[in-house]
Amino acid sequence: MTYCLGILLPSGLLMASDSRSNAGVDQIASVRKLALFAVPGDRVIALCSAGNLATTQAVVSLLRQNMGSGIVGRDLAGVPTMFDAAQGVASVLRDVLARDGDYVRPYGDPTGTFLVGGQISGETHRLFEIYAATNFVEATPRKRFLQTGETKYGKPILDRALREDTTMGDAAKLALLSFDATIRSNLSVAPPIDMLCYETGSLAVTHVRKYSERDAYLTELRQRYSHGLLELVDGLPPPPEPPPDEVARTAE
Amino acid sequence: MTYCLGILLPSGLLMASDSRSNAGVDQIASVRKLALFAVPGDRVIALCSAGNLATTQAVVSLLRQNMGSGIVGRDLAGVPTMFDAAQGVASVLRDVLARDGDYVRPYGDPTGTFLVGGQISGETHRLFEIYAATNFVEATPRKRFLQTGETKYGKPILDRALREDTTMGDAAKLALLSFDATIRSNLSVAPPIDMLCYETGSLAVTHVRKYSERDAYLTELRQRYSHGLLELVDGLPPPPEPPPDEVARTAE
Repeated sequence: MTYCLGILLPSGLLMASDSRSNAGVDQIASVRKLALFAVPGDRVIALCSAGNLATTQAVVSLLRQNMGSGIVGRDLAGVPTMFDAAQGVASVLRDVLARDGDYVRPYGDPTGTFLVGGQISGETHRLFEIYAATNFVEATPRKRFLQTGETKYGKPILDRALREDTTMGDAAKLALLSFDATIRSNLSVAPPIDMLCYETGSLAVTHVRKYSERDAYLTELRQRYSHGLLELVDGLPPPPEPPPDEVARTAE
Repeated sequence: MTYCLGILLPSGLLMASDSRSNAGVDQIASVRKLALFAVPGDRVIALCSAGNLATTQAVVSLLRQNMGSGIVGRDLAGVPTMFDAAQGVASVLRDVLARDGDYVRPYGDPTGTFLVGGQISGETHRLFEIYAATNFVEATPRKRFLQTGETKYGKPILDRALREDTTMGDAAKLALLSFDATIRSNLSVAPPIDMLCYETGSLAVTHVRKYSERDAYLTELRQRYSHGLLELVDGLPPPPEPPPDEVARTAE
């Protein structure tokens, strides 16, 4: 499994993924699932991938080979908009599935999913999610974050705390708390966490980090959050005893 | 969908479920999914059910009809242990699936899942989860809570805060917070929340409650938790800027 998260804010874009790859519990590896395609001053495009590792690595390798090639619709250095970039990733995913899918299916699911985010000069920063079906949706001001992989454990903290005016720094903090909840509950999601914080208009990669298991900030954040949450819960009162007539009424 | 939760503590047992039943988003109803089978002074057995409503209602109806019937292995008033009670519920589930399964499958999944918890005089309180496959597992001191239905959103708070020495009152509070996280993230889970708090050795139903959407305690709990969590997160520092050499190293 994998957990990938993309957050779209007026001030920028955050893309993050864990590093656990597993084929069964006895075959575990650490891989980077965040790939960056940048032409400084012109575009920054980031991909986070989940699903079949052979498929997603093939897509990323082909996209790297295609950079600057001029191949129409499949060259991330040449596509004119982020919509076209998402369509380009989807097209390469279709190419890979067309070539490998039938060979892989007897052994498992060949599909992959992607988050594609970034900015190309001439338009604003945008964020897309490419489904296993190879079609895709876009994040909007009403749906500011997109997730793939093991999405549920890390969603409540984002539903509660992510706001339109959240700063990029606070979004990074929330993203790490979202990953922490996921990592605690699902063994198949694990650090290091790779994270890009892209500042809109910069058209450059200025903030990308790998948070390892023992990263000092991540450790402090996890401990303070965990401690604070237990303190918060301890401070809330337990429910009152139900009145005897309600017990009698509902004890059937 | 549904969310059912059972918590086994040294001092007692908590069983809770939401009330949303839906067949598609345009056919929504409120049903009680917590059923109690009590013989005061001798046994208290509680069921929470998820899955196909016709199936789970049929199981509960048959178990009610069987109470005191003496039918071997299917009479919850007569089974000698909680293990036998769980096996009895599974047997009746198999009966229902054997009769209805083939008729239902063309329209959808006929299966159901159950939490079965309680105490029968002569042994301690116990908690089981019956899978759709109709086999079952038991909660232990190392795995104190069992869930069925929409389980993921409500798991992190329990993973973090539930301890062996949690009191029944605090377990009720944690259970409601677990339901709150689930209800916020999944439309197909909704109040009222039915909850039994069983005190071990009592062999009687003394604390059962229906928490409606506007329940005063639930409303206060949700507001204080939500406010406290936002305050906690706001008080945590954002990550430091990564050093430029790390950005250069990882910006590929």
